[in-house]
Amino acid sequence: MEAVKKTFKMALIQMEVQRSKATNVLRAKELIQQAAESGANVVVLPEMFICNYDRQSFEENAEPILNFKEDEKATAARMLSDAAKEHEIYIIGGSIPELREDGWVYNTSACFDKSGDLAAKYSKVHLFDIDIPGRATFKESEFLRPGTEFTLFETEYCKFGVGICYDVRFPDFSQVLCRDFGADFLVFPAAFTKPTGELHWDILRKGRALDNQAYFAFCSPARPEDETRYQAYGYSSFIDPWGKLQAECETAEDIVYQDIDLSIVDQCRAQIPCYSQRRADLYKLTCLKDAPDSSTT
Amino acid sequence: MEAVKKTFKMALIQMEVQRSKATNVLRAKELIQQAAESGANVVVLPEMFICNYDRQSFEENAEPILNFKEDEKATAARMLSDAAKEHEIYIIGGSIPELREDGWVYNTSACFDKSGDLAAKYSKVHLFDIDIPGRATFKESEFLRPGTEFTLFETEYCKFGVGICYDVRFPDFSQVLCRDFGADFLVFPAAFTKPTGELHWDILRKGRALDNQAYFAFCSPARPEDETRYQAYGYSSFIDPWGKLQAECETAEDIVYQDIDLSIVDQCRAQIPCYSQRRADLYKLTCLKDAPDSSTT
Repeated sequence: MEAVKKTFKMALIQMEVQRSKATNVLRAKELIQQAAESGANVVVLPEMFICNYDRQSFEENAEPILNFKEDEKATAARMLSDAAKEHEIYIIGGSIPELREDGWVYNTSACFDKSGDLAAKYSKVHLFDIDIPGRATFKESEFLRPGTEFTLFETEYCKFGVGICYDVRFPDFSQVLCRDFGADFLVFPAAFTKPTGELHWDILRKGRALDNQAYFAFCSPARPEDETRYQAYGYSSFIDPWGKLQAECETAEDIVYQDIDLSIVDQCRAQIPCYSQRRADLYKLTCLKDAPDSSTT
Repeated sequence: MEAVKKTFKMALIQMEVQRSKATNVLRAKELIQQAAESGANVVVLPEMFICNYDRQSFEENAEPILNFKEDEKATAARMLSDAAKEHEIYIIGGSIPELREDGWVYNTSACFDKSGDLAAKYSKVHLFDIDIPGRATFKESEFLRPGTEFTLFETEYCKFGVGICYDVRFPDFSQVLCRDFGADFLVFPAAFTKPTGELHWDILRKGRALDNQAYFAFCSPARPEDETRYQAYGYSSFIDPWGKLQAECETAEDIVYQDIDLSIVDQCRAQIPCYSQRRADLYKLTCLKDAPDSSTT
């Protein structure tokens, strides 16, 4: 008898992020509950879902993650843990500003399993430093520290490779997650700006899926109607391993759902077998880390 | 005084390929003349423009390239050389079945400079072996030998990195051409099938341009109205370094032109500086060849 492939339902929460952390944590909790009640087994939140996207907001709202059970500042991580346990779901917690013992803030995704345990933690390794005059200028490296590890979030359904936003522009990063560490689903919480989203969101989401013949999801904050607030791109979406758009939000707050069938990964890789056709005598992509950070240290 | 960036005009000849080699060589000559008279400085032909896309046709029409001046079978290469010299243009000669001294046939692009000299020669390194049941099944490796070298075609305008068709599915291949060898324009003669073109042509052309912040061009044969003949995808096109479609053909025989401004490559790489932001401590893409085959040996 052939092994039965796991299928599951996934939700991307395109939440509208307010200025107040308390408001955002509460709203995320409500939306996670709504997604769970709609049958989602895995729920994803957007990049930096607890505060506005600027240096001051990151510093004021940063919290520790590793000791979230004891530290009273860790209200976001505790909510995620509690929600995962209560609803018995997996949560890829978008990202929050993480305050580490070195005193620096990291852009970090905390991932919780169905018991509410912190199962994986990923800090963005490529910081967003761009300068498109008159359209988008940003220098995260002035106030954030970059991560130093790859992260795999292993669940009963599949292996999620986790990246955050700007990481998506580096093809090697996603390839290492899939080739070296066996990810079959790439998940990117991502608060693209409106101009860079209009230029590149569609190319990047489909490109990364097809390059790796893996599922791909972007999870963005909603775009506020108030244009004085951070204008995230929106369009949270699922792409299948063939590079085909399956479902997406528009710009407003919304939850998008998708039934995921992992057998499509195998089908795609068998029919167009790029995986086995690479020319190892001509080029070689090497991961310089021994193993992904699937622990939480 | 600031150095003036070179600009030039490029033409992609989306030729309808007939069964007869003599007919195809003559038609290619006419279309090259037409492109040159329209002011093109660099002209590109499609993959396998001299014969039908099947094993028997490749074997019957293969010709040697290196000694094209002496060997009477080398009618295609001689025509390309003569046309380049006559019109004082650069020609990226799509590809033809190349018969080498080892007795094997290679899928090879011969590139000629303005003097009519063979300036570069590239043989497809990733052969097209796919099996999408009921839609597209092909196994080139049964009757072609793969190349073993990267190829750069250096001109007074820019450095062209040359790939052929299926090579485009391997992100590392294009990255090596751009990062290691300095290509600022990726040119892929490509006879995608209709089904794989509908699935992936648009994702791949924009993805490769954006990954490498380089110009990209696909040059396809036209799609014959007679459906018993090879149904190439068509849509020969130029993509700029931002991943934006600049111009394209539809499915019929046509020539598409584009003025190219190399300063866009520098602008793009400066504004979104992925090139300098790669994490050399986390991953490394290595080229295992010393230098591209920019000679003809």
